[in-house]
Amino acid sequence: MADDAQPHPTLAQLWDARFGEPPPAGLPETVPPALARILSRRTMRRLKPDPVPDGLLSLLLACAQSAPAKSDLQQYSILVVKDPARRAVIAGWLPAQPWVTEAPVFLVFLGDMRRARRMGELRGRPNANDNVDSFMNAAVDAALAMETFLLASEAAGLGCCCISMIRNRIDDAAALLGLPDGVFPIAGFCLGWPAAEGRVSMRLPPAAVVHVDRYDDSRLPELVEAYDRRRHARAPVAPASQRHADRYGVADYCPWSENAARQLSIPERAGFRDFLQRHGIALA
Amino acid sequence: MADDAQPHPTLAQLWDARFGEPPPAGLPETVPPALARILSRRTMRRLKPDPVPDGLLSLLLACAQSAPAKSDLQQYSILVVKDPARRAVIAGWLPAQPWVTEAPVFLVFLGDMRRARRMGELRGRPNANDNVDSFMNAAVDAALAMETFLLASEAAGLGCCCISMIRNRIDDAAALLGLPDGVFPIAGFCLGWPAAEGRVSMRLPPAAVVHVDRYDDSRLPELVEAYDRRRHARAPVAPASQRHADRYGVADYCPWSENAARQLSIPERAGFRDFLQRHGIALA
Repeated sequence: MADDAQPHPTLAQLWDARFGEPPPAGLPETVPPALARILSRRTMRRLKPDPVPDGLLSLLLACAQSAPAKSDLQQYSILVVKDPARRAVIAGWLPAQPWVTEAPVFLVFLGDMRRARRMGELRGRPNANDNVDSFMNAAVDAALAMETFLLASEAAGLGCCCISMIRNRIDDAAALLGLPDGVFPIAGFCLGWPAAEGRVSMRLPPAAVVHVDRYDDSRLPELVEAYDRRRHARAPVAPASQRHADRYGVADYCPWSENAARQLSIPERAGFRDFLQRHGIALA
Repeated sequence: MADDAQPHPTLAQLWDARFGEPPPAGLPETVPPALARILSRRTMRRLKPDPVPDGLLSLLLACAQSAPAKSDLQQYSILVVKDPARRAVIAGWLPAQPWVTEAPVFLVFLGDMRRARRMGELRGRPNANDNVDSFMNAAVDAALAMETFLLASEAAGLGCCCISMIRNRIDDAAALLGLPDGVFPIAGFCLGWPAAEGRVSMRLPPAAVVHVDRYDDSRLPELVEAYDRRRHARAPVAPASQRHADRYGVADYCPWSENAARQLSIPERAGFRDFLQRHGIALA
């Protein structure tokens, strides 16, 4: 359905929007609609208040459960926050993200190491995997389900926005949502019908992300320099979005790499490890 | 293209294959083709030797880069292993997974904390985020890209199989693929044209995975008991797939929860934390 509703951009248009460059030689001339939809996908923060029918939401959640899962253990859960009082509390934590209030549907995707542990308890087997590997498996399972939910939603014409900022209030979130030991959020998630066009986020050039045979980032400085300039020319980082301006100031030219370097220069969520350990995730 | 090639199963058929149950009331009667494709998706281990054109692969990799990324930091890389000698070494590590040899394309999806750190070095900013939060962000970014690559590939008619077992040889893999500090694999990935139908993996019932307002798994034992029986009736765990049969024996009835409990009772990849710490990922 959404396939038909989409315009049919050319490969050159798709590549330009995603990478700010012409496509390399040798690509297929016609792009299948499902791939064109992914190539032109965008985060949607402005959503209409119109409801998402419960039946459609159930279908999208079933799509999420169709994602692959490490060893078939399915180590994730999905929380649908319907209660207006809980929604208001979460929105209150994120005043800079009004779309958390406005989205008709708000979800939280959770890594879940608890369920499989309970299987062990029910069957009298010890849990010998309270380790980083198992933690990563649960986080990855949750991400695979979240991305499948996102792409299914977009295929149905909906718009999505992931909210990792919910982890800035992780203790409060765990209390509000009743998260037991072994369960941790990877992100909140806004879902609704798009109220605006949104904007395709320009990505690093494939040469900076895709490696052949051996990891090789020897050309990274020049690739990022050119990417910074392309991105800045199309969509400069607004003063309000420049990270830690109180420390580093507002710059006329604050490209992607500068903003990334600023962000990583100040600890974010340094208490996450402590949270996990207090919540039954030892990271051994 | 692939949309048209698919048969059009009914919602009842889709739900039965995925959950072994009839769908709940209130779901849309017609399922959009893109969602039907996701609901009936399956891991494809048997792949034809026919090549995947380079241009199509580039298009799919561009789709992967269209996934959302935490704070736009794009903390992942994708490695395409083309060199037959390297492919053979990897296949040699995984003799029980012959599809690693047979797949015409083999990739490794990598969490990448190095790239953003290099941005900091280039711009003279410290890295203050060598912590678990940042590690999880990189793992999640890699998983979002991998799942987008997977769903785009399946939409183009290809088959996929994720290979997390590559992490069982993580030191060897890091050496073979030249992974520098800050870069770690989340999974290998086989891609090719399907040589068999594959089988839809039956999932836990939505009631066991989806929670409303508060995490609540009070009904888990009964839900899993019923799920175990449905799965066993349709596709029992074969003796060769029963985990740690040397310790626990081969059972006539070894349902999902028993196999999960067995798997978690023996440490897997307990050296992952040590690997990460030796590779510049402190997990503070």
